[in-house]
Amino acid sequence: MQIFVETHFKPSFKLLLRDAVNTTDKLVFKDELTGEAEELKALSEAEIILGNPKPAQKLLQATRLKWIQLASTGFEIYTGIKIPALATNLKDFYAVPCAETMIAGIMSLYRGMDRFSLLKEKQQWLGVSLREDLRLLTHKNVIILGAGSIGKQTAKLLTGFDCTIRFFARTSPEAGLRNARQLEGALPQADLVIGCLPGTPETKGLFTRKMITLMKPDALFCNVGRGNLLEDESALVDALMNEKIGGAVLDVTMQEPLPADHALWKCPNTIISQHTGGGYIDERKEMIRFFLKNLRAFKEGKPMENLIHLETGY
Amino acid sequence: MQIFVETHFKPSFKLLLRDAVNTTDKLVFKDELTGEAEELKALSEAEIILGNPKPAQKLLQATRLKWIQLASTGFEIYTGIKIPALATNLKDFYAVPCAETMIAGIMSLYRGMDRFSLLKEKQQWLGVSLREDLRLLTHKNVIILGAGSIGKQTAKLLTGFDCTIRFFARTSPEAGLRNARQLEGALPQADLVIGCLPGTPETKGLFTRKMITLMKPDALFCNVGRGNLLEDESALVDALMNEKIGGAVLDVTMQEPLPADHALWKCPNTIISQHTGGGYIDERKEMIRFFLKNLRAFKEGKPMENLIHLETGY
Repeated sequence: MQIFVETHFKPSFKLLLRDAVNTTDKLVFKDELTGEAEELKALSEAEIILGNPKPAQKLLQATRLKWIQLASTGFEIYTGIKIPALATNLKDFYAVPCAETMIAGIMSLYRGMDRFSLLKEKQQWLGVSLREDLRLLTHKNVIILGAGSIGKQTAKLLTGFDCTIRFFARTSPEAGLRNARQLEGALPQADLVIGCLPGTPETKGLFTRKMITLMKPDALFCNVGRGNLLEDESALVDALMNEKIGGAVLDVTMQEPLPADHALWKCPNTIISQHTGGGYIDERKEMIRFFLKNLRAFKEGKPMENLIHLETGY
Repeated sequence: MQIFVETHFKPSFKLLLRDAVNTTDKLVFKDELTGEAEELKALSEAEIILGNPKPAQKLLQATRLKWIQLASTGFEIYTGIKIPALATNLKDFYAVPCAETMIAGIMSLYRGMDRFSLLKEKQQWLGVSLREDLRLLTHKNVIILGAGSIGKQTAKLLTGFDCTIRFFARTSPEAGLRNARQLEGALPQADLVIGCLPGTPETKGLFTRKMITLMKPDALFCNVGRGNLLEDESALVDALMNEKIGGAVLDVTMQEPLPADHALWKCPNTIISQHTGGGYIDERKEMIRFFLKNLRAFKEGKPMENLIHLETGY
């Protein structure tokens, strides 16, 4: 079968793929093609795709496609793209790294790690005078937006910190907060708000300007879901610049990459983790392992993991 | 009674102390005295001391002393100082903040927070290319040196991360590693070594040059106990500079403050938290609360908390 690999892999990982597929399979790596014409031709011949062709319309070129394995959890960019092929995503694949990035960012602000990095560059010891700016994660009051795999993993990582945790989700049985009104009622007590929601029409703009104003002056706003969770990102910038809230840990932003002159770079007490939340040293290797497992199931007509409806976004 | 307050407190906290003691108690704050002579006079009149007079010999001036409440957990500087007074320390007081600083430092290195801080200063987005340098704390193999309150709290914070944890301690029933030979045997498998040992003659130089060489190339050496845990700090610098180990999280160092030209500032993948590990926003307030509780017990002849033998260091 002809397999089009959209995702960029290092040579060692390409070798891993080549070694694992059958001799009758033909692997075409996008990053080895030259020019749009070659790419469109390869897409039109592909029976299987590994990765996320962009822009989404490109996928309509893959008229022989039987299955696409996305290299992501989210797939909202393909909403409305109708293809007569199976589609699978990476679902829970990023739960552990994303949850760790949230906890790492929060602890970095609470325990001063962001300041220590800058002081180390200057070879400057401030010591004792830094102590009273530090805070503790232990016993904090936490609201997690979303009770999916990232949200649940975030709660799991907090186990040893004796936090009070409430989930906001429309339908999940774990969620104590089910609608905007309940969330607004809980925000004035929260030390941490951690956004772990996927990008869907329902989550777009869900965290309103008003909600930012309801947060405590020392509360942190954190987001590892989608940048457009915020109704108005500039309202967050304003709250940070004027220290109306305590800080932010942002893995995602409205614009990515964030332009060099963006106001968020200048916000105090803010960590910008540059949409690396899902990343880790074995990410590519594990992704290939997952693809090969699904490839075997696909060829043998067995149940595949993480089947999704590409067109509807679920 | 005359109470000499060695520890520096903000005016609001001094007020808290003044309001809490009896009208017959006289509070003398060291930072309100001018000159050594006034200080020595106040010490000679003190029946109670709050804080840690330095150098240790100064304590011998306090001939009327009945009780000293130290503002620290460690008190090795007073070893050999014989005074006919009660002594109490802050024992478990710093367990939560110190353990949090260790986890914050480790996660900062694993999840790239130290790099994000520097990139934010430069307003520079690197994004995807950073992902494969990131690592996960989940499932790591951890050795905790010391099974006291900080070591145990560190293990507690790791609960949600599914780590394998072994304690090194001579006598604690929790400790799987009891002597240098057993520790050396375990080091080649460890991802993290976290020093949580107090400063005693037995712990000085306990972590040897050889032990550093036994660590994995991606392992982190972390220390929130005492800088002299290392037999040879320059061997650690060498290991870091030549990337023989993965990095370090150092709350304590041999020299404090670390001089501006010290080699540790230049070590890659290293967090220097400037002996702030025990610090947090409510540290002073909680310290006063603890002192007042012990003061009441002292006056009423009831059992006091955290009694220690100053002279012997235990």
